Amino acid sequence: MSGPEPPALAYRQTPETRRRLAERRMMILKATRELIAEVGFRGVRSRLVAEKAGISEGTIYRYFPTMTALYAEVFRTAALRELAASVEAADRPGPHGERLAAAVQVHVERALRRPRLAHALLAEPVSPEIEAVRLDCRHRFHLLFSEILQDGIAAGEFIPFDTELAAACITGALDEAIIWPFAKVADDARDKPVLVDFMVGFCMAGLDRFRTAGAGGLRRPA
Amino acid sequence: MSGPEPPALAYRQTPETRRRLAERRMMILKATRELIAEVGFRGVRSRLVAEKAGISEGTIYRYFPTMTALYAEVFRTAALRELAASVEAADRPGPHGERLAAAVQVHVERALRRPRLAHALLAEPVSPEIEAVRLDCRHRFHLLFSEILQDGIAAGEFIPFDTELAAACITGALDEAIIWPFAKVADDARDKPVLVDFMVGFCMAGLDRFRTAGAGGLRRPA
Repeated sequence: MSGPEPPALAYRQTPETRRRLAERRMMILKATRELIAEVGFRGVRSRLVAEKAGISEGTIYRYFPTMTALYAEVFRTAALRELAASVEAADRPGPHGERLAAAVQVHVERALRRPRLAHALLAEPVSPEIEAVRLDCRHRFHLLFSEILQDGIAAGEFIPFDTELAAACITGALDEAIIWPFAKVADDARDKPVLVDFMVGFCMAGLDRFRTAGAGGLRRPA
Repeated sequence: MSGPEPPALAYRQTPETRRRLAERRMMILKATRELIAEVGFRGVRSRLVAEKAGISEGTIYRYFPTMTALYAEVFRTAALRELAASVEAADRPGPHGERLAAAVQVHVERALRRPRLAHALLAEPVSPEIEAVRLDCRHRFHLLFSEILQDGIAAGEFIPFDTELAAACITGALDEAIIWPFAKVADDARDKPVLVDFMVGFCMAGLDRFRTAGAGGLRRPA
């Protein structure tokens, strides 16, 4: 245990104290996320988090009332970080189909880079509280994909179609292909760029039917 | 409570007794499945199962050691019934792409007919024991889809590609589109044939890139 503990009464906190508290909170979240990426949710114990963060187990509970609350926060921050990466990738000029493909590609690439963390975030059995966070984050991915497609329809790039349903198909295809069967094999057992190409191609092909004439689609592989 | 209870010692069982035991076991499974289709896993209670099956709560535990064991069996039988329907739909002469489309279509149609049961089977948070049954059943769908595509490659209908990955994309797209967002809306809130066409079309389009020349693909909607 190092540094001062959070005081019991909030009015005593100076800006410097608040900064240190926020830093320690981040350290606990980071240590937990790294552990999950190594051993999955089921392997995480408060003792291991404390060891990794260089604090006592008791200190964890000064920041998070329960381990479930800590996991939920790790879940939320990790999933929102993934979402932010896809939003950033999609934030570019050009055809909306390409914006969507970029968002999908970044999502898959990042997941395959840390397959065990991806598996924990997407598929590991979790408590109802964490499941609710998972569903909320998945819903945000749906919304992102659906919004890009709505923009594409508004721009005349696609004929109108059920973008919400398409977003569900895309999210489901990606998540299942990411976690299954790759959760069980070694990280480098398959050629990742080939996997990424396949998944992006699969999802984009599902939209080709709705492209207006001349908007272009996926090419057949050589 | 009606009829004799299962005797404690198996050697006393006559063929007639065994038939009655098997029948009552099926009644308990059916009552549980119907309850799940009405109120989801979380709403099921042993009292409700007993009421629906016309037996006492205690009788349930003569057939299933725990409610979890009962749920796992309901899960397995319901999922295998869905699988059997897809296997049967795919068991026809003709192009393998059409066999796959038929298997996919039956899967989606049946799920949309009982969306709450589908949601329970596919997505409702469950215990690790039942999650293991869920994963096993999902794996069998993967295998079915992958095998049809392998046959299609062997028949020269598709160029070689990663059929296991394609099967994961298809299963994921269907499952997510079935449960989200339709689990939350009324059964008839959307036009089901349109939903089915969309999902089948999405999955089959993802395979068009791999069709050999002349094997045909999906048509653009009018």
